[in-house]
Amino acid sequence: MTDALQIVLARRPTGDVTADCFREERVALPPLADGQILVQQRFLSLDPYMRPRMTEMRSYTPPFALGQPLTGGSVGEVVESRNPGFAKGDLVIGMLNWASHTVHDGKGLRKLAAGGVPLSAWLGVLGMPSFTAWYGIKHICKPKAGETVFVSAATGAVGQVAGQLAKLAGARVVGCAGDDDKCAWAVREAGYDACFNHRRERDYGAALDELCPQGIDADFENVGGKIFHAVFERLNNSGRVAFCGAISEYQDTQPIAGPPKMFSIVQKRLTLQGFIVSDHVGLMGDFVNEVMPLLPSGKLKSRETVVDGLAKAPQAFIGLLKGENFGKLVVKIS
Amino acid sequence: MTDALQIVLARRPTGDVTADCFREERVALPPLADGQILVQQRFLSLDPYMRPRMTEMRSYTPPFALGQPLTGGSVGEVVESRNPGFAKGDLVIGMLNWASHTVHDGKGLRKLAAGGVPLSAWLGVLGMPSFTAWYGIKHICKPKAGETVFVSAATGAVGQVAGQLAKLAGARVVGCAGDDDKCAWAVREAGYDACFNHRRERDYGAALDELCPQGIDADFENVGGKIFHAVFERLNNSGRVAFCGAISEYQDTQPIAGPPKMFSIVQKRLTLQGFIVSDHVGLMGDFVNEVMPLLPSGKLKSRETVVDGLAKAPQAFIGLLKGENFGKLVVKIS
Repeated sequence: MTDALQIVLARRPTGDVTADCFREERVALPPLADGQILVQQRFLSLDPYMRPRMTEMRSYTPPFALGQPLTGGSVGEVVESRNPGFAKGDLVIGMLNWASHTVHDGKGLRKLAAGGVPLSAWLGVLGMPSFTAWYGIKHICKPKAGETVFVSAATGAVGQVAGQLAKLAGARVVGCAGDDDKCAWAVREAGYDACFNHRRERDYGAALDELCPQGIDADFENVGGKIFHAVFERLNNSGRVAFCGAISEYQDTQPIAGPPKMFSIVQKRLTLQGFIVSDHVGLMGDFVNEVMPLLPSGKLKSRETVVDGLAKAPQAFIGLLKGENFGKLVVKIS
Repeated sequence: MTDALQIVLARRPTGDVTADCFREERVALPPLADGQILVQQRFLSLDPYMRPRMTEMRSYTPPFALGQPLTGGSVGEVVESRNPGFAKGDLVIGMLNWASHTVHDGKGLRKLAAGGVPLSAWLGVLGMPSFTAWYGIKHICKPKAGETVFVSAATGAVGQVAGQLAKLAGARVVGCAGDDDKCAWAVREAGYDACFNHRRERDYGAALDELCPQGIDADFENVGGKIFHAVFERLNNSGRVAFCGAISEYQDTQPIAGPPKMFSIVQKRLTLQGFIVSDHVGLMGDFVNEVMPLLPSGKLKSRETVVDGLAKAPQAFIGLLKGENFGKLVVKIS
């Protein structure tokens, strides 16, 4: 019998997520039934999309259940198996509990080859966030050489990859991030042509006019709200918006109005397209084949923040929603 | 020498277009230069998109010039030609002045075969409005059997065709229009499953909930504003919006905010796509080939309002912006 540490949803947040939304529990896991495996987890991914799941709002993923462990992308090792598809020692990735161990039926879990890249990379630059960036850039933004692409949350797990892929396509890439260090990293390491600090610069329109003198041809949208409104106003004819997230709106208790002058969608023949990368898992192989070769040479860089210990996951997640992390946020599970 | 009656833009409107925005002029046309033709006009199309062109706002078509004739889709007969591509007696269609006669270089004019359909049809059910409907339904809304499609301005020149094409594709089609007679025509003649009067029904959300119990899969958007917001909120997963126009917003002096909860674009994987049919003239042949055969059998019906005399064009256009016309609005030029 295995004892597992897990984090359950203690209450649904209204407005900002607070520590009392979570409760740490130690539970004795039941013996495996036929078809089940026991995964000992190594890393847990923390991502903004988890915030909407904490509420009851209908979203693309069902809400987390009250009193049950939250779930998330996680990498772990199979330590016991009663499922012929998995053997003890297999490394797996998939949706698991916010926990030290998860009992699972194996469905939707993918086996990983050991070695090559650090395990946590499968949650970041080779995982869902990077796949999201790749899909949005390649299938929606479709940047051409010389075009201007804007990326909000420019150094986030998704944004940092989106910006670099747009740059590799030959575009001028401009972003915004929440502090000067992030902006410096975006330009110095990730190759952004410019990045402004949206906490320091409050006149987003003026900042965009200066940094995107030719307007914006494609927007990889992670933030929503007022930054999006300023970007929307500056989209060029045939502009594309890959609508990936709206982190600035997740903790609002009142719905924010959309951008004014929606008619410009017609005038400028804009396309705004929302997407959820899990709809496109069939393209995962293409993504890995394209992105993996960019890593050893440093053509695609990635930055991650590793938090040590599952118990720190709630606080790290609260910080993520406030923009306190830098790059991909993962929890190392001891 | 020919005398032409023409309507010029006397002043740019702020808010509602008024009669004093126009001025009637009688001018002596100069003799034709080499390459020019003189067209005696038979019908002039009046369309909502002309309203944004009356202002200086940057749009997909350049603004009308102050003191110059407004222009619009028009059908006429060549009465004099110094252009080898056109002979006296040719029927032509294209952008001409709001005038009895236009001197033209022939570029962009298309010759029409006489007979078959009434001349005015080339400005409506076989012309730009219908082509617009066809493009938006076929290439953006892509309705599938059993889906629900919503069409605002359901009996307008564009909407009436959009609704019928969606119906032919097997969708449930719901619309709104500005009076009870239009709604009755939409259901009885155009085959809409339901149509509500948006001047009588002020709780658009409740009306949509009743008439679209399965939500809305595709929206052919002509109106914008509060009706669009209510539709947007009720879009289903993978919903499509063909953004064609926003007539309710054209005369507003203050920009209207967009719909709240833009994040639902992500949650529901929505696509909002603006389009301007003149970008797709290469498909005009496909359109005519598909739509022409639907006319004799009455599979596609059309309703038009004919106003007699160019002098009445300004007042008819003012009425169009208030929804006073029924179906396609054309001016018969004596």
